[in-house]
Amino acid sequence: MRSLIDIPDFSVAEIDALIATACDMMDHPDQYAEACKRKKLATLFFEPSTRTRLSFEAAMLELGGSVLGFSAANNSSAAKGESVADTARTVSCYADIIAMRHPKEGAALVAASAASIPVINAGDGGHCHPTQTLTDLLTIYREKGRLNNLKVGFCGDLKFGRTVHSLINALSRYEGIEIVLISPDELKLPDYVKQDTLEKSGIPYTETADLEGAIPTLDILYMTRIQQERFASREEYLRLKDSYILDLPKLADAKSDLCILHPLPRVNEISVAVDNDPRACYFRQVLCGKYIRMALILKLLGEDGAKPAVDGESVEGLCCHNPHCITSCEQELPALFKKTDNGVFRCIYCETKAN
Amino acid sequence: MRSLIDIPDFSVAEIDALIATACDMMDHPDQYAEACKRKKLATLFFEPSTRTRLSFEAAMLELGGSVLGFSAANNSSAAKGESVADTARTVSCYADIIAMRHPKEGAALVAASAASIPVINAGDGGHCHPTQTLTDLLTIYREKGRLNNLKVGFCGDLKFGRTVHSLINALSRYEGIEIVLISPDELKLPDYVKQDTLEKSGIPYTETADLEGAIPTLDILYMTRIQQERFASREEYLRLKDSYILDLPKLADAKSDLCILHPLPRVNEISVAVDNDPRACYFRQVLCGKYIRMALILKLLGEDGAKPAVDGESVEGLCCHNPHCITSCEQELPALFKKTDNGVFRCIYCETKAN
Amino acid sequence: MRSLIDIPDFSVAEIDALIATACDMMDHPDQYAEACKRKKLATLFFEPSTRTRLSFEAAMLELGGSVLGFSAANNSSAAKGESVADTARTVSCYADIIAMRHPKEGAALVAASAASIPVINAGDGGHCHPTQTLTDLLTIYREKGRLNNLKVGFCGDLKFGRTVHSLINALSRYEGIEIVLISPDELKLPDYVKQDTLEKSGIPYTETADLEGAIPTLDILYMTRIQQERFASREEYLRLKDSYILDLPKLADAKSDLCILHPLPRVNEISVAVDNDPRACYFRQVLCGKYIRMALILKLLGEDGAKPAVDGESVEGLCCHNPHCITSCEQELPALFKKTDNGVFRCIYCETKAN
Repeated sequence: MRSLIDIPDFSVAEIDALIATACDMMDHPDQYAEACKRKKLATLFFEPSTRTRLSFEAAMLELGGSVLGFSAANNSSAAKGESVADTARTVSCYADIIAMRHPKEGAALVAASAASIPVINAGDGGHCHPTQTLTDLLTIYREKGRLNNLKVGFCGDLKFGRTVHSLINALSRYEGIEIVLISPDELKLPDYVKQDTLEKSGIPYTETADLEGAIPTLDILYMTRIQQERFASREEYLRLKDSYILDLPKLADAKSDLCILHPLPRVNEISVAVDNDPRACYFRQVLCGKYIRMALILKLLGEDGAKPAVDGESVEGLCCHNPHCITSCEQELPALFKKTDNGVFRCIYCETKAN
Repeated sequence: MRSLIDIPDFSVAEIDALIATACDMMDHPDQYAEACKRKKLATLFFEPSTRTRLSFEAAMLELGGSVLGFSAANNSSAAKGESVADTARTVSCYADIIAMRHPKEGAALVAASAASIPVINAGDGGHCHPTQTLTDLLTIYREKGRLNNLKVGFCGDLKFGRTVHSLINALSRYEGIEIVLISPDELKLPDYVKQDTLEKSGIPYTETADLEGAIPTLDILYMTRIQQERFASREEYLRLKDSYILDLPKLADAKSDLCILHPLPRVNEISVAVDNDPRACYFRQVLCGKYIRMALILKLLGEDGAKPAVDGESVEGLCCHNPHCITSCEQELPALFKKTDNGVFRCIYCETKAN
Repeated sequence: MRSLIDIPDFSVAEIDALIATACDMMDHPDQYAEACKRKKLATLFFEPSTRTRLSFEAAMLELGGSVLGFSAANNSSAAKGESVADTARTVSCYADIIAMRHPKEGAALVAASAASIPVINAGDGGHCHPTQTLTDLLTIYREKGRLNNLKVGFCGDLKFGRTVHSLINALSRYEGIEIVLISPDELKLPDYVKQDTLEKSGIPYTETADLEGAIPTLDILYMTRIQQERFASREEYLRLKDSYILDLPKLADAKSDLCILHPLPRVNEISVAVDNDPRACYFRQVLCGKYIRMALILKLLGEDGAKPAVDGESVEGLCCHNPHCITSCEQELPALFKKTDNGVFRCIYCETKAN
């Protein structure tokens, strides 16, 4: 069966089909009320993420299925030192599909290759979180009626923001996308994302530190949190943070059909005064998250097809030095690498450059 | 839709109707087996309370619905600093009704005013716990056949006992109630409860420190725990505690139809030797707790009607100084107050006097 | 109603019937899809054990029932000092059957004697774990087609291995069983198991420290983990451990139909290279664990019959000194003892010799 580890696992056609299914579910929920009757979803959350877990659980329940699992590692066999692969093989005896969150990068790929049921990556460390990106795409489609010909601004922490990198990557497969990158210098989009994604697909983009100035031109504004610990000093943080907090004054000259997104949870990066503005889409985005997960569960349960290929080579003297990689804590995992176009080897689990 | 934050949200007629529904459910469970089919209850327990959580979950399952949620804050987005209001709006996308437990007073009101689905207060700090009081009322009705003309004794910690204050308040709306307050001096019922509730509604009451002496006159004996930390000294605690432990000898002269209640869990304030006495009702009380919650869930899911009004005014220079109030930890909450009859301002969230 | 505290609670005929039901469930799952419709399983895990908990939950869900409970004590009323008996009586109001895991020996017996619904012991400290043993028996039956005339090797920690003692005990009730005990001196099978079980039932057994040498003669090889802390020194551990790690070379001369079992989770005592060998049965064993629990739940829900007898006497001056016994932490539990054939008194809860 198939799994979803990262967005590129699906073709644009497949993603469009998922979105179409999700829209149909929103319009005719009754027709799907027993679509997964007697099927079981296992939510394996090795680190807590209530929002994502509840979204998956609500999705499965609305399809008439049931749910089992755990919400934190201290309640799991991992505490006894069981490998992710063994957990995945074991849970394959208990459930029909797995949604897994794990602090280590590449953990979902390891689980998918060991499991005999589909695995959905619900977040593997700072690596991927594909269902958030699918959620963002569905929301944009519901709000705009299209996924092409959009000017999309990303604001906040563009350096470490996993969801930002993933959505930019996903949008780069559509026509007529323009990107505006809004952040302080400290948190600019990394060069490799610019080169490997934006420039490679010929997406025009601009960079600015001025949120207020950028807003009027945007169709979509994707807000993210700026974490204090990212800054050199507390002074620096305090000096900058307010200019990246979205409030009503900053929206004065925004388009009337601007669509404001946020992966949530938000702390204070969007003023609550904005919540009741019709352009605030981030709570409708939560609802979209449930429906796209319903569509995804239904798709994966319905499909045969191959497991994600764990196709890499072990290279003499090469190992992954990423301390967040699943290989860093699971000794029996073979160190495997993939040679990229530009000749560098990347770990197949966390995609970090090896050396 | 409506929510239940505290008992006064419901009229006596509504409470009597709830009790009637619960009794019908006890007598004809099959007729309600699919009453909430395809409905979802979210149990949001920001602090653990197994008994209350399982009671709600069992209630929803017996109505044919399903359940999702969390049982401790460390597994929730709250750990990431999300506001109660945001959590409530988010969960409104995942479920049809919320049962929420939170350590801060007023948290349930905040959730109810933000959610787009009904919210049941399953305990907000030391403030309210209305489903416990509804449980107590149903149990009394089942055991006695009436809620009026009863002599009710409350024993133990009457000063801090939230369930005691709430039940006294609820009973004060019925005819022919007499109250006997049994406690050590340190733990007497607060004056404001006597004045605002007992005296206001003209309920005759007496105070005593002598449990054994009071028992023979009672129709209902409501026991609560005496916590050591409430006392000036350990000596004081040890000197007093035994006289407030209910055992068989103390029941020697009790009425044959005395009804002994306890909100549970009990530690040692009722000897296990009493458990098999037919007058011990506290385990039947647990069963009543499930049925009254079934009736409550069904009522709130079936009703339209307005959200609880958050009607208060912000008063120049006035803020709530209660460290347990939800406003103490959520900065963006407006400080709102309500002027009471005697001219004092009370925080609308925790009902503490402002100054 | 009946409960399952330990294997001897069931006759051989009952166990064979359970196995027959489990096999029928594996062959005709659809016929059992609603066998427990509207029934509720409470999983009360006072200590985490994901594998066991999920196995019970999956079992109940496949029978069309539903599940509620907790996965760790810190989320339970136990944190408030509630007794196991009170929890069991309370949960009897919420569910139809209980699966309980508790760190204290004898806790399940206490729960079963207080509950008004069946209780399944899902592990009480180092004392019993009967559903693991039933799982092992079903797996052997599925793999071998019989439970008699088998040569069974047990490897690893035979001194502290609860599952080993229990399975030896269970097998001792069948014909033609031969046992091979494979362990380092430090971890040999205790004498009382040899005397009370093997010798008493006339089971021929041999002891060896040589795993590789023993394998060729075996029909069943039951592997367990060797924990470093069991050894006098780290050196001793390192010197020995490899000789008890099962890898492909050690299987060179094994029978072609050898059946390799492991209760899981495994750390490194079986090389992952063995996983794909058809003789590796430990993941099929996981699946058997789900089906035998389905059969057990169905049996206990269907049966009337007496509670487990708590028949012991309180003996002047005798108390249980086992620090892991449930009586060590629950003061109100009566200290009760049973006189065994050889005249010693054993605690009825943890079965430890009293003195």
